[in-house]
Amino acid sequence: TLQHIFKQIFKASLELQEDDHRKALLVSRKKQADDTVVEINGERVGDGQQRLIAGPCSVESYEQVDAVAAALKNQGVKFLRGGAFKPRTSPYDFQGLGEEGLKILRDVADKHGLAVISEIVNPGDIPMAVNYVDVIQIGARNMQNFELLKAAGSVDTPVLLKRGLSATIEEFMNAAEYILSKGNKNVMLCERGIRTYEKATRNTLDISAVPILKQETHLPVFVDVTHSTGRRDLLLPTAKAALAIGADGVMAEVHPDPAVALSDSAQQMDIDEFNDFMAKLEESGLYKSQKKVVKG
Amino acid sequence: TLQHIFKQIFKASLELQEDDHRKALLVSRKKQADDTVVEINGERVGDGQQRLIAGPCSVESYEQVDAVAAALKNQGVKFLRGGAFKPRTSPYDFQGLGEEGLKILRDVADKHGLAVISEIVNPGDIPMAVNYVDVIQIGARNMQNFELLKAAGSVDTPVLLKRGLSATIEEFMNAAEYILSKGNKNVMLCERGIRTYEKATRNTLDISAVPILKQETHLPVFVDVTHSTGRRDLLLPTAKAALAIGADGVMAEVHPDPAVALSDSAQQMDIDEFNDFMAKLEESGLYKSQKKVVKG
Amino acid sequence: TLQHIFKQIFKASLELQEDDHRKALLVSRKKQADDTVVEINGERVGDGQQRLIAGPCSVESYEQVDAVAAALKNQGVKFLRGGAFKPRTSPYDFQGLGEEGLKILRDVADKHGLAVISEIVNPGDIPMAVNYVDVIQIGARNMQNFELLKAAGSVDTPVLLKRGLSATIEEFMNAAEYILSKGNKNVMLCERGIRTYEKATRNTLDISAVPILKQETHLPVFVDVTHSTGRRDLLLPTAKAALAIGADGVMAEVHPDPAVALSDSAQQMDIDEFNDFMAKLEESGLYKSQKKVVKG
Amino acid sequence: TLQHIFKQIFKASLELQEDDHRKALLVSRKKQADDTVVEINGERVGDGQQRLIAGPCSVESYEQVDAVAAALKNQGVKFLRGGAFKPRTSPYDFQGLGEEGLKILRDVADKHGLAVISEIVNPGDIPMAVNYVDVIQIGARNMQNFELLKAAGSVDTPVLLKRGLSATIEEFMNAAEYILSKGNKNVMLCERGIRTYEKATRNTLDISAVPILKQETHLPVFVDVTHSTGRRDLLLPTAKAALAIGADGVMAEVHPDPAVALSDSAQQMDIDEFNDFMAKLEESGLYKSQKKVVKG
Repeated sequence: TLQHIFKQIFKASLELQEDDHRKALLVSRKKQADDTVVEINGERVGDGQQRLIAGPCSVESYEQVDAVAAALKNQGVKFLRGGAFKPRTSPYDFQGLGEEGLKILRDVADKHGLAVISEIVNPGDIPMAVNYVDVIQIGARNMQNFELLKAAGSVDTPVLLKRGLSATIEEFMNAAEYILSKGNKNVMLCERGIRTYEKATRNTLDISAVPILKQETHLPVFVDVTHSTGRRDLLLPTAKAALAIGADGVMAEVHPDPAVALSDSAQQMDIDEFNDFMAKLEESGLYKSQKKVVKG
Repeated sequence: TLQHIFKQIFKASLELQEDDHRKALLVSRKKQADDTVVEINGERVGDGQQRLIAGPCSVESYEQVDAVAAALKNQGVKFLRGGAFKPRTSPYDFQGLGEEGLKILRDVADKHGLAVISEIVNPGDIPMAVNYVDVIQIGARNMQNFELLKAAGSVDTPVLLKRGLSATIEEFMNAAEYILSKGNKNVMLCERGIRTYEKATRNTLDISAVPILKQETHLPVFVDVTHSTGRRDLLLPTAKAALAIGADGVMAEVHPDPAVALSDSAQQMDIDEFNDFMAKLEESGLYKSQKKVVKG
Repeated sequence: TLQHIFKQIFKASLELQEDDHRKALLVSRKKQADDTVVEINGERVGDGQQRLIAGPCSVESYEQVDAVAAALKNQGVKFLRGGAFKPRTSPYDFQGLGEEGLKILRDVADKHGLAVISEIVNPGDIPMAVNYVDVIQIGARNMQNFELLKAAGSVDTPVLLKRGLSATIEEFMNAAEYILSKGNKNVMLCERGIRTYEKATRNTLDISAVPILKQETHLPVFVDVTHSTGRRDLLLPTAKAALAIGADGVMAEVHPDPAVALSDSAQQMDIDEFNDFMAKLEESGLYKSQKKVVKG
Repeated sequence: TLQHIFKQIFKASLELQEDDHRKALLVSRKKQADDTVVEINGERVGDGQQRLIAGPCSVESYEQVDAVAAALKNQGVKFLRGGAFKPRTSPYDFQGLGEEGLKILRDVADKHGLAVISEIVNPGDIPMAVNYVDVIQIGARNMQNFELLKAAGSVDTPVLLKRGLSATIEEFMNAAEYILSKGNKNVMLCERGIRTYEKATRNTLDISAVPILKQETHLPVFVDVTHSTGRRDLLLPTAKAALAIGADGVMAEVHPDPAVALSDSAQQMDIDEFNDFMAKLEESGLYKSQKKVVKG
């Protein structure tokens, strides 16, 4: 039992040590009072100006991405998203174009002067991906794929981390901590709805998570209105709520022809709907357009 | 088996009949395209102007209610809430002052020119209650207390129906239908958070329910920011989100001295906090004050 | 602020008092170490022998109930359930036969020597109901209808209290406490599934609630296999699990012709299926039949 | 719009193709009517005899694992589990001994004639891991780490796939399909509780999932009683329920000195408790011991 006592002392000191670590989580406002501002391709996120991220669910072709990118540029939106590696429930669903998809995103973004955000799913792909993307997205299903988090923490490329399907806010912050603890400070969080019993929406947008995350951490916080609601008709009202509650930005899906999209066809906007969405956001007074006004 | 066939025909016709009823739910926009505007004590709810309902969780004394009512009047808020019948988890928690509490609310409201909203929990109390209150509140725990809904449907007094702890939006609309089907058209809905696994907030505010309810029904929709979050620090940001997403109003709890409140002490604002809350809502541009400006 | 201090002292003493109450909840094993055994019509529930409650979802006619009751008697099952007051999501669904339904249950039960269990939904109906039923059921939607709980606590008739749609175990115990605190000690609990995101079953049977309730309280605990699963094919396996984990009994729905049932048609067993269910439960060794063996 | 029509035809045919795939999911009973029996180190799982998997949460030392393994052997339990790669919520919690932990497990298992089950978290580690383990465990947090599933599908080593924190049964089956679709047919499923609002248990054991998975798939199904409940006092009752409902086996955690365990200290059994657990399972008649009786 002496051995037992020593073990307990060892364990207690271990816990004490862990407790110290926790008090000083790198993501915490207690550790850093000032907001983290992430620089992406010359743009700044988290500096008080609210931003939009838009693009198709999946990269399908150069033409498809190019059409969306032109619409983004036209609206003053700087961040182009698109999925090249798609984590799909069924192995028989479209799994994405892979590295070829990343190349398309890069080429199109360069043409229009946009930044590229794309999801990476395999820790081993991170070194390849940073050649193409400006922001590594880590998706909801991989929020606790700790090997992927560690790999993303080992590079400098900014990371957009989405909340897990049913992650608590505390687990979400700890997942971000995995990335920061490996040295990468350029982390942005994204609320994207949580799984509840309610089936009127795909997930339940946990809007309160935004002010909580802004209080508890110094990281920029986005709201993905597409995956949280799963309904095209709710994109505009939830985007307004997100901006009103203090999110640093909103993410939404846009596709030139949603009816034939290889994934998420029911919830993406087409270009006209996107233009209308942007116009109404501006009208509401909640979003300040970054369109350059061309003078005559 | 001939008997069986007849039964099936009977059942099929019953179902058909029910289906017809459902298509024409009285709460549905399909049945009534125009917004329902509820008149309460000379004020209108649901006409496009966004309103506030405020007051203490429980009625404790005349002085307590009077202090809050004066603050409401000062801010141009017209709707005074307060609980006289308290549905509490434990039988040993404070159960409310009952009819005496309703009298206090009425007296104070008359003094300040406010309307009274208070929860009723027993179908047998409805006839008594309508002598005191301008709006009958039916609380979350009683959303599917169908006998209470029927009793509230049998009077003319407006009803504020709160969403159940884990009610679906469809169940919520059907609960409202119980009231309308008995003849009372003056129904207002109130989203107040749903029960999820997340424990950072008391409930999870389902902000998307607001635009869904506004689309599916013609009834006014409120958001109770106090019970959905259970956190004083989240009242202002969630109120902004509620107004931005199109709620007809916001409900919040105010108590002259929350630290000694007999219920919900952790989540009520004191008078100073309430004044600050109102000032910041107006500043945000999302709320139009109804304060009368006194000119010199 | 002296007043404030006095209020705090008052509140603190109130809390202390409540805390004492809680430590000694009447439902708690700490208050009563021995199992409560409820006597119903000469039968005992909670004495270690596991019992079955069966019958149709809704009472539809004398013939329907009589057919089920004969099958119960044949299988040695002593407890006949049937709904006369039906809490239905839609006001246009079948609402039950009311008092007429209770009369049918009583007449049929007397004919076959069975005990009657039926749900009551209005506090005002309790005095009438005790003339017909041996056990008052309080349904899931009314678990926190505290006026109904108090009314049921004011009579001697045993009460079967079902867990709310998304009630915590603690809330469930407090709901039972409402009944005991009014003087009625004959309370039985019934786990009937909780609301989760999973849609393969109607609710998610929380099987762990059974040993927790047996540990924390001295009350008999049943499992409603019909409403927890909503699937006829899961009644037998979940009944086995319930008996194996230590439930005092199982509740299941039986209807002579489920296809034409006015409610829950998809989940009730017909008489043949019920006989098969009973035979397989006995075969499993988990259930001891109470059939009387007729000797030649 | 001709192009649009062609795209729609293309998409429709794609969907049709996917639908065919789905009808014939490799995991489905429709594809294979007979139960899959997985052979592990000379033992068979899924052949009707119910088995136990036991061992410490984390591998901490040779002595610790050896003590548990001796207890397992003594009880006739053939499957030794232990975590070498630990997916922990916080990056500052103990992350496991890694490959060194796998070596310890292999050495101890060989000494006692047991099979080794251990979780792998990085797709890149699979080729290394198969040198040490008899069964690759894929944990709840990685159930939709599709890259890991594909890697595990590319080897022959049996896989124990745990249900995700809030995965639907359908998602669970599709995750298993990822493994089978890559060629590895030796897959076992493990229900381990789902995330709900209830906090009396760590997770809510979804016991109904067992008969559903047995009906829908031909794969063996285990129940992890430790992680589903998170409470030592519920291990025995839930194990009984799991065996009664038809699980192919039960998984439970055992540690020589739980109080000093580096993870999950509150829910692991010590050796005495484990012996008692085994004795009571046998007494219940629900578990057939595989202890070899030594004759005199």
